[in-house]
Amino acid sequence: MSKVIHCMQKVEKWGIFEIALEGKGDGNPFTDYEIKAEFTGENEKKTVDGFYDGNGIYKVRFMPSFEGIYKFRIYGTYAKEDGCEGTFEVEPVSEGNHGPVRVANTCHFAYEDGTPYYSIGTTCYVWTLQSEELQEQTLQTLKESAFNKIRFCVFPKHYDYNFNEPYSYPYEGTPVDSSGLTRNNFMEYNGCPDGNHWDYTKFNPKHFEHLEKRIRDLMDLGIEADIIVMHPYDRWGFSLMSKEEDDLYWKYLVARCSAFRNVWWSLANEYDLMPQKSIADWERYASILCEKDVYGHLRSIHNCKKIYDFTRPWVTHCSVQRIDPYLSGELVTKWRERYQKPVVLDEIVYEGNIELNWGNIPGEEMNRRFWEGAVRGGYPGHGETYLSEDQILWWSHGGVLKGTSPRRFQFLLKILKETPGLGLKETQLNPYTEDLMATVDSLIPVPYYLFYYGFRCPAFKEYYFDDEKEYEVEVLDTWEMTVTKCGTFRGKFKVQLPAKQYIAVRIYEKGLI
Amino acid sequence: MSKVIHCMQKVEKWGIFEIALEGKGDGNPFTDYEIKAEFTGENEKKTVDGFYDGNGIYKVRFMPSFEGIYKFRIYGTYAKEDGCEGTFEVEPVSEGNHGPVRVANTCHFAYEDGTPYYSIGTTCYVWTLQSEELQEQTLQTLKESAFNKIRFCVFPKHYDYNFNEPYSYPYEGTPVDSSGLTRNNFMEYNGCPDGNHWDYTKFNPKHFEHLEKRIRDLMDLGIEADIIVMHPYDRWGFSLMSKEEDDLYWKYLVARCSAFRNVWWSLANEYDLMPQKSIADWERYASILCEKDVYGHLRSIHNCKKIYDFTRPWVTHCSVQRIDPYLSGELVTKWRERYQKPVVLDEIVYEGNIELNWGNIPGEEMNRRFWEGAVRGGYPGHGETYLSEDQILWWSHGGVLKGTSPRRFQFLLKILKETPGLGLKETQLNPYTEDLMATVDSLIPVPYYLFYYGFRCPAFKEYYFDDEKEYEVEVLDTWEMTVTKCGTFRGKFKVQLPAKQYIAVRIYEKGLI
Repeated sequence: MSKVIHCMQKVEKWGIFEIALEGKGDGNPFTDYEIKAEFTGENEKKTVDGFYDGNGIYKVRFMPSFEGIYKFRIYGTYAKEDGCEGTFEVEPVSEGNHGPVRVANTCHFAYEDGTPYYSIGTTCYVWTLQSEELQEQTLQTLKESAFNKIRFCVFPKHYDYNFNEPYSYPYEGTPVDSSGLTRNNFMEYNGCPDGNHWDYTKFNPKHFEHLEKRIRDLMDLGIEADIIVMHPYDRWGFSLMSKEEDDLYWKYLVARCSAFRNVWWSLANEYDLMPQKSIADWERYASILCEKDVYGHLRSIHNCKKIYDFTRPWVTHCSVQRIDPYLSGELVTKWRERYQKPVVLDEIVYEGNIELNWGNIPGEEMNRRFWEGAVRGGYPGHGETYLSEDQILWWSHGGVLKGTSPRRFQFLLKILKETPGLGLKETQLNPYTEDLMATVDSLIPVPYYLFYYGFRCPAFKEYYFDDEKEYEVEVLDTWEMTVTKCGTFRGKFKVQLPAKQYIAVRIYEKGLI
Repeated sequence: MSKVIHCMQKVEKWGIFEIALEGKGDGNPFTDYEIKAEFTGENEKKTVDGFYDGNGIYKVRFMPSFEGIYKFRIYGTYAKEDGCEGTFEVEPVSEGNHGPVRVANTCHFAYEDGTPYYSIGTTCYVWTLQSEELQEQTLQTLKESAFNKIRFCVFPKHYDYNFNEPYSYPYEGTPVDSSGLTRNNFMEYNGCPDGNHWDYTKFNPKHFEHLEKRIRDLMDLGIEADIIVMHPYDRWGFSLMSKEEDDLYWKYLVARCSAFRNVWWSLANEYDLMPQKSIADWERYASILCEKDVYGHLRSIHNCKKIYDFTRPWVTHCSVQRIDPYLSGELVTKWRERYQKPVVLDEIVYEGNIELNWGNIPGEEMNRRFWEGAVRGGYPGHGETYLSEDQILWWSHGGVLKGTSPRRFQFLLKILKETPGLGLKETQLNPYTEDLMATVDSLIPVPYYLFYYGFRCPAFKEYYFDDEKEYEVEVLDTWEMTVTKCGTFRGKFKVQLPAKQYIAVRIYEKGLI
């Protein structure tokens, strides 16, 4: 007979119910035994995989999507005797918990509770694998920023400016000796050089536990964790595992992390730089994800030069690295139309001053690209690569921000949050003008217009929407982060502008905002 | 028997031989009589049309391309009795006379004497039709500038900011009353409103004489006159003449102006905004030009939204208005490859602050577009539209320059002139880097490399060309117009850069420049 447990654990809706159980520790518990759990509430019934956490302990996690009493039943070959069953209660959400982010329409996101989510993302590829001190600093920086999404990897990164050993490794074993690594020879270590000794059937639970701690820290800050599951920048061999090893890894990761409401899945960073993986492989990982992540977290895959086929049904949103040296945010319109899914620009060149051309635009250009993309209804992402004596570059390591663009995103986010509805949609009132303008993305027209003039410097503009409504007009300096109210207008009207770059104009029916 | 004349006129090679003769003045001499002339030198024989210049006077002009004695014979129905014949001597060129500009290869221009010509163009559509004082000011401004080409119209212009009557009209007659013209109603005057009374078979020789005076002034300044023969911005009806009237105009203009060595022909400004003219019309004008301009001056046609088919054999070079809100100079590479003809970007958005989006980029962006285009081997053109209380905007009227880009073109022109050979050619050393780099456009490789980083801000760059040669390295600040010598390097080397926008790096074998 099953052991019966009545959990006293306080679980809120979209929180995590976790239970740890002793089980068989002989052989290789990661592969020899399985643990599953069935959760039944009034409104949902879900079966999830548990996972082995080392030292004879198995764990099961579950994210309830409703309040009320849940029953659970845990079973599988893991148990020395029987499994167990029990109940627990799900309470209302605490402040700041809006549930997982979902795709709300063909363009925008919203939290599950309906609150619109305007992604302002950043990238710190391996911030969780740096020193404890640096990780804490990164969290402090994030706390003070506008960022509400961060992309980062499970595996460590081997690349220029990334020669150090990680905080921990995902597997049992020992890494290749990196004491002779320099900028000049690092390419020779790519892939799986002699000297790596890993058992890809034995995970290092500490590595994942730490990852989860950081996902939880991000959750506490209201930041989505866009987890990059695979990537090509590798000297340890993690990018060259077999099909079976890959699948084991995917299942283990999903069993551990999918109960975190702020998780997004990025199948890869630059999938197309991993020739060892075929499209069939990516599709197989996606099918594992769709089966094992019972919560349907957001899923996408990020490219280097060749965009993945985002029409695939498992792809919830586009995750694009810019594919043109000049255009990034400008292409959102094209991608929106083509894919009919939200467009997240997960690389639009990083603000910085390194020699590599994906990391050396100034803050002004970064902020311009954000606005260009955002006004088109897309969600540009940030990264930062300023050279530093201590070799700490935000883009990979986190730390502090040195650039001038991030604080401008606070202003953009404020403007987005003030937009009625789910988000913006580029609209052409008159194709001849080349004015970039957004209205509210909704079925019912909303008298709200957001113009963005980018590098253009008009000294005035003339507007006409209708003869009836009274419109409030505001000039937004997206660089200086100021809003200047110009008064109210009706009919055809002229607005004086400051004849400088990076100006937006917001016009809406009086009283709308 | 013909009257025999031995001309004492001093004519230099590529200068203008002109002879004025009395002839029949009855009827309509513009259409009733013809005058032709045959010129025979040791190295060339050409037959040209003369033209009626009013008051019973006919003129013939000729541009000799060789030194030595020329015979001429003038004939036609113009003469009351016989024609005339004679001789004249062509002397060596004076300083600054390099002959007409020719297409030198699939990408670049050179004067007929072989001197490379790097076009730095500007646009003042109707500068010759403003007040005398303003025209003189324009010439003074041009004299102090880097511009060596200017686009302007034969016909007056009717458009926003262009409501005044012109200095003169090309035909006998009277114009529509414009006293009631305002910004709000000017569109109603488009085309041929009631009130215009012109005789399209009777030219106003003063109008053309004045045009020629200005072409000669430009010649004295070493500036090419890119004459826009037709355009859509019209309230007088000149854009709506019949086929016969158009052809008469084309022949008259060519007879008058083709002997000026600095003339280029632009069939139209924005041909595609003239629905009244078909492609067959444009091709017919081109065939008139090819037949009647015996000197083969450069010929092209400028678009609004749809680029003309520049593969047509009569088109000597591309004359492009940008067709994308964001890209201009960046597209030179594409057009060069497609058309295999020099690419002149005759509109890349004007520096200025007007409300219209073809006229409100800042000087920094204008200069960036120039460099982007020039490093690709193209020839961007300038225009300026700063609002002004006196309604004088350089783009249309000339006057003084208010922008910040023009003086930067002096620096660009200096760099272009220091390039060995005919000009630059974009070359990719490594497509992955996205570095924009030019080498010398020549059959034999020249150890010369010009990198332009545009909006990118690298703090350093690494270079490698070969192990043998010693290279001089210079950092060019294209905005500050400075050249900083970095010393000489060999093999793989690293150059510190200022981590700011608009930097170019010039690298060449020691002693090459």
